[in-house]
Amino acid sequence: MGCSEEHSEIIADVFLAAEVRDQPSHGMIRIKDYYELWKAGRINVNPNISIVHESPSTAVVDGDNAVGMVSAKRSMEIAIEKADKAGTGWVATRNSNHFGVAGYYSMMALKHDMIGICLTNANPLVAPTFSLSRMLGTNPIAVAIPALRQPPFVADFATTPIARGKLAVAEKKGEKVAFGFVQDKTGKPSDDPAILKSGGSMVTLGGDRLHGSHKGYCLSSIVDIFSALFSGANWGPFVPPSVAYLPLLEKKVGKGTGHFFGAMRIDAFQPADQFKAGMDEWIETFRSAKPVEGEERVLIPGDPEREAEERIMKEGIKIVPAIIKDLQEIAGELGVPFKYGT
Amino acid sequence: MGCSEEHSEIIADVFLAAEVRDQPSHGMIRIKDYYELWKAGRINVNPNISIVHESPSTAVVDGDNAVGMVSAKRSMEIAIEKADKAGTGWVATRNSNHFGVAGYYSMMALKHDMIGICLTNANPLVAPTFSLSRMLGTNPIAVAIPALRQPPFVADFATTPIARGKLAVAEKKGEKVAFGFVQDKTGKPSDDPAILKSGGSMVTLGGDRLHGSHKGYCLSSIVDIFSALFSGANWGPFVPPSVAYLPLLEKKVGKGTGHFFGAMRIDAFQPADQFKAGMDEWIETFRSAKPVEGEERVLIPGDPEREAEERIMKEGIKIVPAIIKDLQEIAGELGVPFKYGT
Repeated sequence: MGCSEEHSEIIADVFLAAEVRDQPSHGMIRIKDYYELWKAGRINVNPNISIVHESPSTAVVDGDNAVGMVSAKRSMEIAIEKADKAGTGWVATRNSNHFGVAGYYSMMALKHDMIGICLTNANPLVAPTFSLSRMLGTNPIAVAIPALRQPPFVADFATTPIARGKLAVAEKKGEKVAFGFVQDKTGKPSDDPAILKSGGSMVTLGGDRLHGSHKGYCLSSIVDIFSALFSGANWGPFVPPSVAYLPLLEKKVGKGTGHFFGAMRIDAFQPADQFKAGMDEWIETFRSAKPVEGEERVLIPGDPEREAEERIMKEGIKIVPAIIKDLQEIAGELGVPFKYGT
Repeated sequence: MGCSEEHSEIIADVFLAAEVRDQPSHGMIRIKDYYELWKAGRINVNPNISIVHESPSTAVVDGDNAVGMVSAKRSMEIAIEKADKAGTGWVATRNSNHFGVAGYYSMMALKHDMIGICLTNANPLVAPTFSLSRMLGTNPIAVAIPALRQPPFVADFATTPIARGKLAVAEKKGEKVAFGFVQDKTGKPSDDPAILKSGGSMVTLGGDRLHGSHKGYCLSSIVDIFSALFSGANWGPFVPPSVAYLPLLEKKVGKGTGHFFGAMRIDAFQPADQFKAGMDEWIETFRSAKPVEGEERVLIPGDPEREAEERIMKEGIKIVPAIIKDLQEIAGELGVPFKYGT
């Protein structure tokens, strides 16, 4: 597609991280979407990513319409550089695109003995509490916190009860989702995973007002505002689609998709080894909490993905035939040799 | 009780803010709790609040076991001072106590054209996903974001589906809560608001695993870690009770209760007026989203509390007889004149 070798490796690395951490909805299934965006001239493979404004602990980055992984990785590097000098670093990025798994960028901070934070807005699929209209994306929050002997604490979650990818999976299997995870075009709770196609919406974490959806709405809004208003990106209902088969919106309120990154140097607060030993004790205490009947144990955020990674690094990544076909077609169109399997 | 006039005014101001914003569970109902803590020698009314560690954008504050409002307000002031110079300011506070409404401190940033953030841990009442044990507090998150002509965006919410105070209200009225907002001592979902007294627990935002309680568990954990591990306060199940009738815990893993404060200077990212005009448009867009049938409108975080404030500032604060009795008793014991009504 004309990406530099360096940028190609970054993009591949983030896709692979999603696959080995068992988040395939953010992995290779997206390659075709990115390819189609490039074919439609909607993504820039030779970007000039630049800092357009800064203070000792902050920066605004213009991603020059890069593939999201490329602008996101550079932005997180800048946050880490800022934190190195000022104690913390906070970077808002505009004019970017879909960037894969948010957890990847938050985890970049860990080896620097920093806490990493990553937020992004996304194209609107989610109705706020009491709203009939889709106003927000699934707007994820990722926070990675280092420990000493224990593996890190890694939270990475959409601010909706269910991820977008899981709706698609349920639809393909002909299954329903939990009642109230989506609403129909009149705003009534539904269990139909295909309801987005008939004017329905996803809802915010909590599900409905009684169960705290207004708190999920707050969280999703904060992610949107930090990602877009700080950076000058599009916000809320104006975030551009991350697939080429949906048209670009007529109204723009900023440039591209927005992200927000944070890096917090542990020793700007506590000696790093003392903090990380404290995290070990925190993790061990929570992990040894007595589980409810029928559950084996209490998990620590990051446990499921890390355990998947251990397994998949041994067993290999299973690629579904549809993705192999996508990759074959793309390779054919671009004249790149393609070989699957051993 | 021996507080300085300055500290007394701070404490009264935060209690009043809760009352006029219709959050009475964090208002005058707590005065007796604070008084009893002081009588038991568990709170320090003449604290020496100090910065024990700092970097350009961070500080750790020791509250010297102050009334929470006093250490919290000072900590937020330090965050604002840091942000003034470094773009953002982040303060972790240990050795503090219950501080009333988190929103109060986040809103201190608004008049400086900053975003304000406030987190606090609290005594353990909440079971993480799959856990039988109470490991976390209701650990609130408050974020205040300024606008230009529109009132500010103010999110202030516990990371549980229901606030602790609402359980008490339901219990007093003999009502049930929504099924699954609490669990019994065997971990089964329940609707009994009094279940905390028989070994039950509150649950995290989301309610159960199917509905995303693991995301509420992530959020509550992040609040706990930022409040206590950054500052050196007690965390998780070791956070001390905020009432004198519960004994202090034998095991300590830090000093007192922990808070976390953030101040982000808008113009460390965007010209303040441009950002605030963007927030106006964001707020107007969301406010004009089409509501679902049966709902009048889509709210912006902060709308309900601001509307309550407008009403209560006209009508006055209604004090329930039990609180008048508390205040009369305290005034009698301390030899302070007490007069209620006009």
